[in-house]
Amino acid sequence: MTAKKFSETHTIPYYEGNITNHMTLAMLLNVVILVSEHQNDTLKLDHKQLIDNYGIGWVVTSYSIKINELPKIDQTIKLTTRGTSYNKYFAYREFWIEDESGQELVKIDSIWVLIDEATRKVSPIDAEIIAPYESENIKRLPRLPRPEKLGEDVDASKKYQVRTNDIDFNGHVNNAHYLDWMVDVLPIDFITSHLPVQVDIRFESEVTYGNWVESSVNNVTMADGNVKTIHRITSGDEVSAIATIIWRKIK
Amino acid sequence: MTAKKFSETHTIPYYEGNITNHMTLAMLLNVVILVSEHQNDTLKLDHKQLIDNYGIGWVVTSYSIKINELPKIDQTIKLTTRGTSYNKYFAYREFWIEDESGQELVKIDSIWVLIDEATRKVSPIDAEIIAPYESENIKRLPRLPRPEKLGEDVDASKKYQVRTNDIDFNGHVNNAHYLDWMVDVLPIDFITSHLPVQVDIRFESEVTYGNWVESSVNNVTMADGNVKTIHRITSGDEVSAIATIIWRKIK
Repeated sequence: MTAKKFSETHTIPYYEGNITNHMTLAMLLNVVILVSEHQNDTLKLDHKQLIDNYGIGWVVTSYSIKINELPKIDQTIKLTTRGTSYNKYFAYREFWIEDESGQELVKIDSIWVLIDEATRKVSPIDAEIIAPYESENIKRLPRLPRPEKLGEDVDASKKYQVRTNDIDFNGHVNNAHYLDWMVDVLPIDFITSHLPVQVDIRFESEVTYGNWVESSVNNVTMADGNVKTIHRITSGDEVSAIATIIWRKIK
Repeated sequence: MTAKKFSETHTIPYYEGNITNHMTLAMLLNVVILVSEHQNDTLKLDHKQLIDNYGIGWVVTSYSIKINELPKIDQTIKLTTRGTSYNKYFAYREFWIEDESGQELVKIDSIWVLIDEATRKVSPIDAEIIAPYESENIKRLPRLPRPEKLGEDVDASKKYQVRTNDIDFNGHVNNAHYLDWMVDVLPIDFITSHLPVQVDIRFESEVTYGNWVESSVNNVTMADGNVKTIHRITSGDEVSAIATIIWRKIK
């Protein structure tokens, strides 16, 4: 059995892009979450139905993002997703982004859990909720690459306060904002001269409105000339998210 | 002669909305700028053509936004614009946002100038550049309501540093971000219990990457129960933008 795929197209407006004319990494996550939510919606399992009927909601714990080519402003892309497989607590969802000729621009693997909205604890994945996706029930889900841990070596850090507009309809910080905080700590000269080719990000704990977060990074030049940036977002003593991003120099 | 109208539809994704399930004011500006840029594009006068061929670009100096109903997440809206009229230095552009039944949700009046990209000075509006819009050449353009000046009475203020992703392809701060800074300084309880009905905003001077801005506000309860918030964004000693927003309580 292969899980149901769902596709839609999206044209990237200027305000989803940055100074390099490419989509920002945060917007990349926003649009893939949108396509998954649209699939949920067609299967009558959107966030509202999950909360109203089951008191639960899907939350991403990690993404592994392989970028052949970051979509550009004004480009029309085709987004495809499927809820590939699941076990007792975790679900594996894939995303593909293609250009209009069918060339794969981005491939995203993601791991999700169901969270009980009242207790904010992980809830087992009920067959009733997963059945419409025709996901495969398997013991071992694929393991996404674990982002590296930032050590003592910190090249830069900046503090950000969670804003009203960082908060979604559920009162939580939209995960995509973590990537904005991670990327913003890099010098603008670096952003204008490099493009991401791989992003591995893992969310550890939630941040709420008004909290201050600190975004820290260590940059490492790799043997092949690419640059690896190792990121950590903390809120107080807690680690909120970690990520490793590989960048290539724009020719 | 009546100026050419241009329309398109837009469905509001969750990430253009806030905790109240309505589109943010910043995103409202982003989508109207997008429709005007699409009109420019069909008339072969988009930002790239203006810069490449004339070394100039359009910049908004002020908006007056009348909101009957702020568009909601998942709603499909119809956006219409026309470059209504102009004189030697200023152009008047109107925007209309309607719901699917043709009900007017938002009406926006805006005043634009052409800026010389090299000197950042205002450039006279050349007939060649305005002709395709079939705008009316008039002596006196409509005057938009002037936002009130914030006095000594400041109820709240917050500082923000301009981020990489606040900067557009031209290296300038996208005007919409000023509204994010203005709104964010209001308490979240106020945002969840009020909706904007009128926004008058005026841009005074540009802010650049890395600069810190301070967003300050004074709240005034009006005789009719609505709340007026008077906003100022400063960068160092300079005023970058001022705005007056009228809010109604959500019933």
